Amino acid sequence: MTDLTHLNQEGEAHMVDVGDKAHSSRTAIAESCIKMLPATLEMILSGDAKKGDVIGTARLAGIMAAKKTSDLIPLCHPLALTKVEIRLEADAALPGIRIQALAKVNGQTGVEMEALTAASVAALTIYDMAKAVDRAMEIGPTRLLKKSGGKSGEWSAS
Amino acid sequence: MTDLTHLNQEGEAHMVDVGDKAHSSRTAIAESCIKMLPATLEMILSGDAKKGDVIGTARLAGIMAAKKTSDLIPLCHPLALTKVEIRLEADAALPGIRIQALAKVNGQTGVEMEALTAASVAALTIYDMAKAVDRAMEIGPTRLLKKSGGKSGEWSAS
Amino acid sequence: MTDLTHLNQEGEAHMVDVGDKAHSSRTAIAESCIKMLPATLEMILSGDAKKGDVIGTARLAGIMAAKKTSDLIPLCHPLALTKVEIRLEADAALPGIRIQALAKVNGQTGVEMEALTAASVAALTIYDMAKAVDRAMEIGPTRLLKKSGGKSGEWSAS
Amino acid sequence: MTDLTHLNQEGEAHMVDVGDKAHSSRTAIAESCIKMLPATLEMILSGDAKKGDVIGTARLAGIMAAKKTSDLIPLCHPLALTKVEIRLEADAALPGIRIQALAKVNGQTGVEMEALTAASVAALTIYDMAKAVDRAMEIGPTRLLKKSGGKSGEWSAS
Amino acid sequence: MTDLTHLNQEGEAHMVDVGDKAHSSRTAIAESCIKMLPATLEMILSGDAKKGDVIGTARLAGIMAAKKTSDLIPLCHPLALTKVEIRLEADAALPGIRIQALAKVNGQTGVEMEALTAASVAALTIYDMAKAVDRAMEIGPTRLLKKSGGKSGEWSAS
Amino acid sequence: MTDLTHLNQEGEAHMVDVGDKAHSSRTAIAESCIKMLPATLEMILSGDAKKGDVIGTARLAGIMAAKKTSDLIPLCHPLALTKVEIRLEADAALPGIRIQALAKVNGQTGVEMEALTAASVAALTIYDMAKAVDRAMEIGPTRLLKKSGGKSGEWSAS
Repeated sequence: MTDLTHLNQEGEAHMVDVGDKAHSSRTAIAESCIKMLPATLEMILSGDAKKGDVIGTARLAGIMAAKKTSDLIPLCHPLALTKVEIRLEADAALPGIRIQALAKVNGQTGVEMEALTAASVAALTIYDMAKAVDRAMEIGPTRLLKKSGGKSGEWSAS
Repeated sequence: MTDLTHLNQEGEAHMVDVGDKAHSSRTAIAESCIKMLPATLEMILSGDAKKGDVIGTARLAGIMAAKKTSDLIPLCHPLALTKVEIRLEADAALPGIRIQALAKVNGQTGVEMEALTAASVAALTIYDMAKAVDRAMEIGPTRLLKKSGGKSGEWSAS
Repeated sequence: MTDLTHLNQEGEAHMVDVGDKAHSSRTAIAESCIKMLPATLEMILSGDAKKGDVIGTARLAGIMAAKKTSDLIPLCHPLALTKVEIRLEADAALPGIRIQALAKVNGQTGVEMEALTAASVAALTIYDMAKAVDRAMEIGPTRLLKKSGGKSGEWSAS
Repeated sequence: MTDLTHLNQEGEAHMVDVGDKAHSSRTAIAESCIKMLPATLEMILSGDAKKGDVIGTARLAGIMAAKKTSDLIPLCHPLALTKVEIRLEADAALPGIRIQALAKVNGQTGVEMEALTAASVAALTIYDMAKAVDRAMEIGPTRLLKKSGGKSGEWSAS
Repeated sequence: MTDLTHLNQEGEAHMVDVGDKAHSSRTAIAESCIKMLPATLEMILSGDAKKGDVIGTARLAGIMAAKKTSDLIPLCHPLALTKVEIRLEADAALPGIRIQALAKVNGQTGVEMEALTAASVAALTIYDMAKAVDRAMEIGPTRLLKKSGGKSGEWSAS
Repeated sequence: MTDLTHLNQEGEAHMVDVGDKAHSSRTAIAESCIKMLPATLEMILSGDAKKGDVIGTARLAGIMAAKKTSDLIPLCHPLALTKVEIRLEADAALPGIRIQALAKVNGQTGVEMEALTAASVAALTIYDMAKAVDRAMEIGPTRLLKKSGGKSGEWSAS
C-alpha cells in the first residue's frame, strides 16, 4: 500500500506536485442515490413539469458543482474539464432516484473527485427540493464506479 | 402531505418567498460516514500529524462548504450562518469515519442543507485524501439527524 | 438630480454606507429578451424535453446569478435575498424569448441589480445553448420594470 | 441546421465533450451598450476622477466577469483565458456608452460566452453606478461581433 | 488572557457561535503599505490615466475582496457588509503606497478581517500591476488601526 | 525599465495577452510573517491539538487561496496550478510565525501572485484565529523570495 499522497514528509497537508505526470485523457464515473418515501418519489415523478424541474434542477446543480470541485475539496487541483454528464433515474425498488455522473479531462490528474462531487450535489439538490415533504430521505452509498487514464490506468468497482 | 415548495404553480423551479416567515433561531444536525478498508483507516489514524491533517482538512472543508451552500444548491437562500461545527470520529466497526455537522442561524429559513452539505463535503475530502490507497471507499448514508426552529419546529430522525 | 452615490467626494469608487437606512421589504422586477431566427426559436420549443431543458437551464442560471450579484458588480452590497423568480416566455413576434426576473429582500438596500443580473444571465444562457445554430442572436433591451420599498419608494418604467 | 449541442439524445442538459476537438487560438469580440438620459451621460463624463471611476469600474467588472463565465453559464467549460480587453466609449448619439469586449484562449472550445458575459457585466456595472440618478437606462443590444478559431472558423456579424 | 475562541474544548477548529451576541454597529479600519523603488512609484504616478488605473484597480480589488472574506478565511462568519471604503496614498518617504481600508456592518460579529483582507488584496493588486518592473516590492506591515462596536468596544492601535 | 504591462496604450487596465508566450515550468516562492505577543505565540504552540489546528487551518487557507488568485487579483490569468505547498514555522525571535508558500504551474504566465496570495491569506488566517487575544499583531513583510521559468528566467530576492 502506498503512502497517503496529500501529506508531505512531515505529515502536513499540501497539493501534490502533478507537474511531471503525463497528460492523458482521463474519465471517471461515480454514482450516488437518494432513498425516500414512495409518496415522495411519486410526487417528484407526477406531472411533466414537476418531474422536469426536480430532476432537471438536480442535473444542472451536479454539472455546476463538478466545476467547483477544486474550490470545495482543499487539495484538489483546478482542472479544465472537457465533459460532464449526469443521469438521474427513478428506481421504485429503493424507492428513490439513482444518479450517475461522468467527468472527463485531458490532464495530469484524475477526475474522480469531480464525478463524486457532481453526484453528491445532485443528490443534495433533490433533498433540498423534496425536504418539505420528507426530511428522512437518505443519500448514499456514493462511490466511484470506474476510472480510466493516468498511470494507474483502468479501475472498476467490484 | 404538502406540495413541493420549490415549484410554483406551473411547476417551474424558483426560490420560494421566505420574506414573511418569522425570524427564529434555527439549528440542524446532519450526519454522514465513509467506509473504507481497515488498513486505510489505520493509515489515517497512524501518527499524530497524519491524523491531524486528514481529519483536520476534512473538518475545515466541511465548515467552508457550509458557507457555500447557497452557491451549490440552486434554490437555497443565502444565509448568515452564526455557527458551524463538525465532529469526525473513527469507527472501527464500519470500518471508517463518522461525521456530524451542526449549523445554526437566526433567520427566516432552515439550515438543513448547510448541515448536509458540510457533512457531505467533509466525507468527499476524506475520499480525496485517501483515494490513492483505497478507491472503493463508500460515502453514506448522509441524512438529517435533527432540526429545530421555524414553523415546523423540532424534528428528529427516528 | 442627485449626485452619483457610488463616488465619494474625491470621485473614488466605494461601497456606499447603507448602515443607517431603514430595513424595509424591497422588490424589483427586471426584463430582458433575446431575439433569434424563427428556426432557432422553433428548435428550442420543439419537443418537451428540449424545451424543458433550454428554458429550464436559463431559469436556474438566472436564479443562481441573482445570488452572485454582489460578487459580480463591484460596489453592490451582499444581500440575503428572500425570493427570486424568473419567467421565460416564447414570443413569436420577436421572434425569441422574453424574460422577467423578480427579486425580493428585507433589507437596507434595493434589489434592482439582482433582478437585472438574473435576467441578463438567463438570456446569456439561452445564447450559450443555441449559439451552435444561431450566432447572430441579440440580447436586450434589458431594463428595470419596477421597484418598490426603500426611501425612494415605488418606481415603474413608463 | 445542426442540433442543439448542449442537449444529449434524450434532450437532457449536459456539458458537451470537447476533449477531441483541436487546440487552436480562438478569439471573440462582443458588444453591448447602455442608453441613458443626456444628463446621466454628462454626469458620468464630467470631472476626471468621476469619469475614471465609472468607466474604470465597469471595465474591471467586465474583465473579472469574463473569468467567472463558466461559473455563471451552467454548461460552459472552464477556460484558461489568455487575454481579456474591454473598451468603453461615450456615444452622444445614443446617448450612452458603447462597450466592446475581446476574449482570447488557446483551447478546445470558443470564447464567445466570455466576451458576451464581460460586455454584459460591464453594462450592468454602469447601471449600478448611475441608477440613483436614472433608473430607466436600457442595456442592449448585446451581441457577438466576431469570432475566429475552431472548426467553424471565422464568423462576423453582418 | 482569554482562550483562543476558534478552537473548541478538544482544540478542533470550528466557527464560533455568535447567535447570542448583540447586534450592534461595528466598524474596523486596517492599514497596509507596499514599498517599492522610487522609479516604480514614479511610473505608477506618472500620467493621469495610468495613476487612475493602478490605484483604481487596487481600490476595487480591495473592495471586492472584503466581500469574499468569509470565503477566504476558513472560520469567518458571512456578513452583510453595509460599507467598504479604501484610500490609497502615495508616500515618497517609503517610497510606495499607503492603504487604509474601512469596513462596517450591523451584526453579531466584528469586521476586522474584512478590513484587513481588503487592505491586503489592494496591496497584492499593486504588486501584480507593477511586478514587471520591480519584483522586490514588499507588502506590510498590515495591521488593524481601530475597531468599534461589539462587547469589546473600542480598540485602537497604540 | 519596461512599461507597466497591465496598462494598454491608453493607460486602461486589461488582462495582457499571454497567448504567444512559451509554455514552461514556472515556480515561485513567497514569504510572509506575523508578529505577535510572546504569550500569543505560546498559546498557539501550547498543546498538540491547538497547534495543529491554528497552524493547520492557516496552511489550508493559504492553499485554497492560491486557487482563488485569479478571482481576487483583477488582471491575473486563471492558471492550472500543479502544486501548492505552504510551510509555517514558529520564530521566537519575532516573536511570531514565518510562512513560506510555493506555487508551480506549466503555463504561459508566472505564479508569483499565487505564492504571494497564499502566504498573505495564511497570515490573515492566523490573525483571525488569535485576534481575540491579541489585536495588535502585524503581518509582513510579504515578499517574493524567488521565481523561475518564463522569459525572465530565474530571480531571487537579494
